[in-house]
Amino acid sequence: MDTRSFLRFFFLTLCIAVALLFTWAHLPYGPPYASDLLDCSTNSAWCSSKNRLQSKPPSPTRRLRDHASDTPHHPLDPLTLPEITAVRSILSSHALFASSSSHALHSVDLQEPDKSLVLRWHHGDPLFPRKATVVARVDDMSHVLTVDLTTREVTVEDTASHSGYPTMTLEEMTAATWVPLMNADFNRTIVQRGVDLTDLACLPLSTGWYGKVEEKRRLIKVQCYSTKDTVNFYMRPIEGLTVLVDLDTKQVLEISDKGGSIPIPKAANTDYRYSAQKPNQVLKLLKPISIEQPNGRSFTVEDDHLVKWANWEFHLKPDARAGVIVSQAKVRDPNTGEFRDVMYKGFTSELFVPYMDPTDAWYFKTYMDAGEYGFGLQAMSLDPLNDCPRNAYYMDGVFAAADGTPYVRSNMVCVFESYAGDIAWRHTECPITGMQIREVRPKVTLVVRMAASVANYDYIIDWEFQTDGLIRVKVGLSGILMVKGTSYENVNQVSSPENLHGTLLSENVIGVIHDHYVTFYLDMDVDGSDNSFLKVNLRREQNSPNESPRKSYLKATKTVAKTEKDAQVKLKLYDPSEFHVINPTKRTRVGNPVGYKLVPGGTAASLLDLDDPPQKRGAFTNNQIWVTPYNRSEQWAGGLLVCQSQGEDTLAVWSDRDRPIENKDIVLWYTLGFHHIPCQEDFPIMPTVSSSFDLKPVNFFESNPILRTPPNVETDLPVCVAAASA
Amino acid sequence: MDTRSFLRFFFLTLCIAVALLFTWAHLPYGPPYASDLLDCSTNSAWCSSKNRLQSKPPSPTRRLRDHASDTPHHPLDPLTLPEITAVRSILSSHALFASSSSHALHSVDLQEPDKSLVLRWHHGDPLFPRKATVVARVDDMSHVLTVDLTTREVTVEDTASHSGYPTMTLEEMTAATWVPLMNADFNRTIVQRGVDLTDLACLPLSTGWYGKVEEKRRLIKVQCYSTKDTVNFYMRPIEGLTVLVDLDTKQVLEISDKGGSIPIPKAANTDYRYSAQKPNQVLKLLKPISIEQPNGRSFTVEDDHLVKWANWEFHLKPDARAGVIVSQAKVRDPNTGEFRDVMYKGFTSELFVPYMDPTDAWYFKTYMDAGEYGFGLQAMSLDPLNDCPRNAYYMDGVFAAADGTPYVRSNMVCVFESYAGDIAWRHTECPITGMQIREVRPKVTLVVRMAASVANYDYIIDWEFQTDGLIRVKVGLSGILMVKGTSYENVNQVSSPENLHGTLLSENVIGVIHDHYVTFYLDMDVDGSDNSFLKVNLRREQNSPNESPRKSYLKATKTVAKTEKDAQVKLKLYDPSEFHVINPTKRTRVGNPVGYKLVPGGTAASLLDLDDPPQKRGAFTNNQIWVTPYNRSEQWAGGLLVCQSQGEDTLAVWSDRDRPIENKDIVLWYTLGFHHIPCQEDFPIMPTVSSSFDLKPVNFFESNPILRTPPNVETDLPVCVAAASA
Repeated sequence: MDTRSFLRFFFLTLCIAVALLFTWAHLPYGPPYASDLLDCSTNSAWCSSKNRLQSKPPSPTRRLRDHASDTPHHPLDPLTLPEITAVRSILSSHALFASSSSHALHSVDLQEPDKSLVLRWHHGDPLFPRKATVVARVDDMSHVLTVDLTTREVTVEDTASHSGYPTMTLEEMTAATWVPLMNADFNRTIVQRGVDLTDLACLPLSTGWYGKVEEKRRLIKVQCYSTKDTVNFYMRPIEGLTVLVDLDTKQVLEISDKGGSIPIPKAANTDYRYSAQKPNQVLKLLKPISIEQPNGRSFTVEDDHLVKWANWEFHLKPDARAGVIVSQAKVRDPNTGEFRDVMYKGFTSELFVPYMDPTDAWYFKTYMDAGEYGFGLQAMSLDPLNDCPRNAYYMDGVFAAADGTPYVRSNMVCVFESYAGDIAWRHTECPITGMQIREVRPKVTLVVRMAASVANYDYIIDWEFQTDGLIRVKVGLSGILMVKGTSYENVNQVSSPENLHGTLLSENVIGVIHDHYVTFYLDMDVDGSDNSFLKVNLRREQNSPNESPRKSYLKATKTVAKTEKDAQVKLKLYDPSEFHVINPTKRTRVGNPVGYKLVPGGTAASLLDLDDPPQKRGAFTNNQIWVTPYNRSEQWAGGLLVCQSQGEDTLAVWSDRDRPIENKDIVLWYTLGFHHIPCQEDFPIMPTVSSSFDLKPVNFFESNPILRTPPNVETDLPVCVAAASA
Repeated sequence: MDTRSFLRFFFLTLCIAVALLFTWAHLPYGPPYASDLLDCSTNSAWCSSKNRLQSKPPSPTRRLRDHASDTPHHPLDPLTLPEITAVRSILSSHALFASSSSHALHSVDLQEPDKSLVLRWHHGDPLFPRKATVVARVDDMSHVLTVDLTTREVTVEDTASHSGYPTMTLEEMTAATWVPLMNADFNRTIVQRGVDLTDLACLPLSTGWYGKVEEKRRLIKVQCYSTKDTVNFYMRPIEGLTVLVDLDTKQVLEISDKGGSIPIPKAANTDYRYSAQKPNQVLKLLKPISIEQPNGRSFTVEDDHLVKWANWEFHLKPDARAGVIVSQAKVRDPNTGEFRDVMYKGFTSELFVPYMDPTDAWYFKTYMDAGEYGFGLQAMSLDPLNDCPRNAYYMDGVFAAADGTPYVRSNMVCVFESYAGDIAWRHTECPITGMQIREVRPKVTLVVRMAASVANYDYIIDWEFQTDGLIRVKVGLSGILMVKGTSYENVNQVSSPENLHGTLLSENVIGVIHDHYVTFYLDMDVDGSDNSFLKVNLRREQNSPNESPRKSYLKATKTVAKTEKDAQVKLKLYDPSEFHVINPTKRTRVGNPVGYKLVPGGTAASLLDLDDPPQKRGAFTNNQIWVTPYNRSEQWAGGLLVCQSQGEDTLAVWSDRDRPIENKDIVLWYTLGFHHIPCQEDFPIMPTVSSSFDLKPVNFFESNPILRTPPNVETDLPVCVAAASA
């Protein structure tokens, strides 16, 4: 080393030392303590922006509830705060934990009683013994435990046979983002890139599984961003820098640093907060508008979880992994007045979000958000008046921290009646018949909503119930893109734009192409548990010239799926079918089997190679529709333990067992898909894009079930004045 | 003839004679007189149900407007009432009409000035000379006329080269339904079927074209129903009885009577009117709910047709054939404050509704509702509070009767702001990053709606404008099924249910399988008229093992369509593309061409044989997307003259000329499709089924155009009380 080299080395080392010292003194956010996390999670105010222009006093529907004395009322009610405390206490005295050097609870959930028991249970009956399912890591081993809250008995199941690891805890994800800062090489790079360590924000990115590297140890990849001059650090990536961290030991295993020459995009025009907009640029486009219910809501939520609205009744609960779970959805038959089973359980089972860039810092980004991050854990408190309309009811989530301490995620789910001005049914007679008829009924629906912010992306999940018996499940995508830094400032500098793997959104910012798949578990019980899956295929029939002046027409052919493989469906525009879940033993007055049909909306199919490791793990997206026989262990389409899993426990594997599904208790699975080629309008935050599918009664009712509902009349509507004049 | 035969004959004849006499004395609705039709059409009260429980005093927004002194303000404003009167007067003195023995005006519309002129016109400039395009039948010949309202000059174009005939007039359709009653055979059949002639309701059904029979004369097929004990006569078909009528001579040409053994379905449970429901069966499921705007609407309608809302501005007019036409839609750029062109003209160009039953009484049912019946002519007055919410603004249609007399269809179109509780964009930071961010903006849209009742079916057409620049076009289907009588009362009596050609909906009622295709004309002008059509295709790329741990990813490849055939698109789930209309000469700051993309929603493809006569006529459904160079004569996808056309003037024929479309003024065509296999819930009236597509900005704006819009705050929202307490 010559003198100049030495001086350069000395200077650099000094810089780093100073930077490290400075870092610890000025960290933008402190390293997490359990109490911080709890504080965050128990106090919804923590999660509200300090930058909002006005404080909103909590209204009666949004008061912070004390959950300390919650008790369960229904067999499906989630674990209460006292129950989670009890689980923690039982486990802490259990040999496995007492003797361990380290342990963490990755999930603590109600173990739902057997379906047969729940179906027999009636309001007022005593509850079944309450049990919890706990997924824990103890001394670097995963365990699935059953904790009996009555007997305090603990059953331990070893999961060594599984390739995957449990959903990460918030605590270890947060801790992982701090690990790189302990590494001098990392800090040097950051400084070299011109980023002040105080401006660093890092994200814990699940690694997926690609071979030996990802086997036999829990890993996380950390990538970082500059928060300087914007809260929207996602738009300021420190490109090409990936730190591989051991999640158990919290050690840096490897630093990949390949983007040194890529500038960090500017902060200008990235901050999306209202408070950060220049007052003269604010666009007040619209006068106030509101959904108003002068006589109050038309629904009730009994015992905190049982929603009763119009002709619907269902059990609703927040869930750390699924977000929300809708159970025992029943609709009242207008003829008999009796409630009829529609769906035993429905929820977001898994997500799969592969990015389409094969390079070092991007290839692994193939997220499975429910199993890896916890879709419910990432669902923050909703913003009243903006996430949900004024007439919304809010429901809290109660979850367990990694040490078993319960915490409350307030206002995590909202329920509201929606009226957009739409029409439930109508008919006008026209001048040809000369009859004076104009009969129209407005369409009002009940929406259940949650919004999960899985780091940058926001997923809005709506379960919408219609009085005509239809259930619409809608997924909205908003939030912030995961972008890639680039030297390019203009497309005209790029010789092969398709090799950008995305769109140049702003100077030095590429929005990388990616897909979103959201797979729903739909345990349909149409008038009882034993159902069949019926495909009604439309095919062209040719007529001979003597038969008809028409050469062709479409004929519907019905086929009942005998086994699982008969029900693996890829949708085809030119080979269309309807997909019915029917009760083959129950028929309408004129003899049609009662049923519900799955009506796919706009969707996308995964086009990745079936042998590509991420597609093996996300093999539940190989088809848009699957049907499996009910099996209480088969609920998570990507497997129970998803982190770094190898795809041996997915819906695709279960379904390939090809079990009989005719006239059985069956589960329908549907995947909504989105291809997302970003565009400049998605910068710096994306307008919501939505897609949906429907569960629609088909010969379930004898006739239109909302024939007898009255129209709107002026005298029923509210009398309103502007707030200022009130 | 023996005595018994003679007696039987005599008795029958007597019956018929008595029936005929009785008929004329007790006709359920009188034969039409011009004044009746006008009365119906000019007076919206005529069209409101006499059966509604309460009368609604017209509110200021729904007052009946006097159009007698209307004047045009914009080059695209529709013909005013005085202008139509002038057209009538000019034509009545024209040689062609003065010397004719019979004539009828089938359409009287504004002849829009050349697009180049309109684009140069500014508010305040004098209007161009106003002209009308009239399609008339004079002495059994079709003519397309141009009437210059200033010079009173008339230019006559012969249309002998066209195979088709003009849109039917309401008058001749109504008259046609009376023709069968003049026929003794027909009346005998009716009586034999057990239907009282006073209970008869007949429909004029367009015949389509199947060969020689339908050539060189204007035809209509009339089928009838029993109105006994129900207004929902559609559910009581007199099956298999089809009367072929000459529309010009009003003569019965042929009676096909093949369903004598099929009973007429019962009336029970078919009446859908609120007044016909038994009070104890009324389902009042919900408390009142309303969209309220305490400070008034956020939009204005200048000069009756220019709608200005938020960042949008567009010209809106009712149209006898298209229903509504949206013109010169422009959106304000949030950076420059200037309005930018998006779409020069958009409307429902044609519908195609083929039924899937090849038998005698059904094969011909392959309707093209816009060109045959007039989609706007069939759009009746909307029902305030039910068709549109309380905050809606209403627009009247002014059309011409067959004799040229103008009439007003009041409240034919509504415009309202909609808020369903949805989210325009959002982001919450999660505990991992520890930032206190919760920014959410509510989504409010502007909806333009009309509802056409083409006999039984009701089509709800919504043009929905979003502040983020997106236009959603939604088609809702409601109204009443066209059903088929059958002897079957239960599916268990049917040996081959697929040969029913539909679903048994009730005893003796089959809902016949059919498709709906709705084709939209979308003259996109993205920042100017010259645009290109760009396909962004996503394809799987394979990686070699050395390149990446990933085996595959998706790459976007862009192709600009050079000629029309490059832009004939069949959608494929497994070969996905985005479809952009771009302005190749205008780029964003970072160099992306500005564009709008067509985002297809759930759709269906026509599967009929391409050589099947109806599919030749409906060949515009052979692809879901087409792009043609702008040509003012190519607006109606099924041709200008659609009745009995042979398909030589359709979009498919134009497109096969394969003209250049790169960097030209281009028109985008999109077809929404529905396969409809009826179910019992559709009986006796169908809950609305919807589908939609979007026109979405893609690199049109430099960034999210609604970044700077404020969130909802409590203090802006209205203060409401129940009507009863007001």
